[in-house]
Amino acid sequence: MTEAPSERTRIHRHPERGAYDRAGVNAILDEALICHVAIADPEGGAPHLIPTIHVRVGDTLYLHGSRASQTLRALSVGAEVTVAATLVDGIVFARSAFNSSLNYRSVVLYGVAREVTDLAEQFAVTRALADHVAPGRADDIRLPTDDELRQTLFLALPLTEASAKVRTGSAHDEPEDLALTMWAGVLPLRTEPGIPEPDEALAPGTATPDYVTNYRRPGSE
Amino acid sequence: MTEAPSERTRIHRHPERGAYDRAGVNAILDEALICHVAIADPEGGAPHLIPTIHVRVGDTLYLHGSRASQTLRALSVGAEVTVAATLVDGIVFARSAFNSSLNYRSVVLYGVAREVTDLAEQFAVTRALADHVAPGRADDIRLPTDDELRQTLFLALPLTEASAKVRTGSAHDEPEDLALTMWAGVLPLRTEPGIPEPDEALAPGTATPDYVTNYRRPGSE
Repeated sequence: MTEAPSERTRIHRHPERGAYDRAGVNAILDEALICHVAIADPEGGAPHLIPTIHVRVGDTLYLHGSRASQTLRALSVGAEVTVAATLVDGIVFARSAFNSSLNYRSVVLYGVAREVTDLAEQFAVTRALADHVAPGRADDIRLPTDDELRQTLFLALPLTEASAKVRTGSAHDEPEDLALTMWAGVLPLRTEPGIPEPDEALAPGTATPDYVTNYRRPGSE
Repeated sequence: MTEAPSERTRIHRHPERGAYDRAGVNAILDEALICHVAIADPEGGAPHLIPTIHVRVGDTLYLHGSRASQTLRALSVGAEVTVAATLVDGIVFARSAFNSSLNYRSVVLYGVAREVTDLAEQFAVTRALADHVAPGRADDIRLPTDDELRQTLFLALPLTEASAKVRTGSAHDEPEDLALTMWAGVLPLRTEPGIPEPDEALAPGTATPDYVTNYRRPGSE
């Protein structure tokens, strides 16, 4: 196992679930549709915490949103940030409440963001975000106008201080509980698409693209 | 619409998406399997941020976990906490990148936790957690021993300072984009169970219960 990149990324609880290799971190960030972003409250109260879309490009995690967002504005001027992306893969039914759990894969990333001001990078991030949400969409979307770009804040976080935590497998019950007769095992959970709902004003003859009808998250089966 | 319970729970971005009524907040907390919990870093750095299971009972949100968890220990001694629970309901494919979005329901809750020390309340929370994860499981689980209870920290957060943010509906494209020929609309997403994986050491004749074979989140269709 690779070493933790810093003390605060080291997994203390259940260290056997810790993973610090970049490929493992990347796969979780790519499959997770959204993340949660936390920054300190400047007045010392509870942190600010928001869900948002992200995308990983190489060694960088990009966030974006309206310039009117207080949290994103704080990021753009150097607030230290914590990002968590979590995938719930299943329910672990142990015989005991104590050993019941979830199977999951999560990443926590610490850092300070850089505002993306270069126009080419802004367009690249816009395309990457479209493909993160629905792989294939980037070639099939109207890119931002100058005015839309001015309203949008793009932020880049280096993936240097990230760790993953992963639980897989069945229940770990106490030996004395194995004779109990309740069901134990794992119920897998996954994000599944429903039936596409076309916009009422679709241009005539517009077909539903494959990336919608056969939607799946990258990395999922 | 009910008023925001405090300034920091008021929705500034897209205020039309804000909802402050308790029933709306409750429904999101009940359907969300997990939440994210953020507390300030005592040394002033990036916040601590962890995913964890929660359960709502009446006007209280309960968290629990090992006493070895730094974040939960900080909560038990009065750290101000922010909790976010987020459900992603679908992908909103707008013709423009700028108007593309997700349909979602999210709750943010601020507060200070109380440690649950009463034995009867600890058992009630244990049962509620089991039923939160899989409705029906509480009657079918081995409850904690004294030693297991000693290792577990139970925390109660009042649901007084909570707000919800909800986006529903189709894409809101610019009028001049409606003639574009790419697909627009919504692809619903939901959490679906897979095929149950029984534990290898199941007691002979143990049937798979209905709450596993017909699993669904409370509130989902």
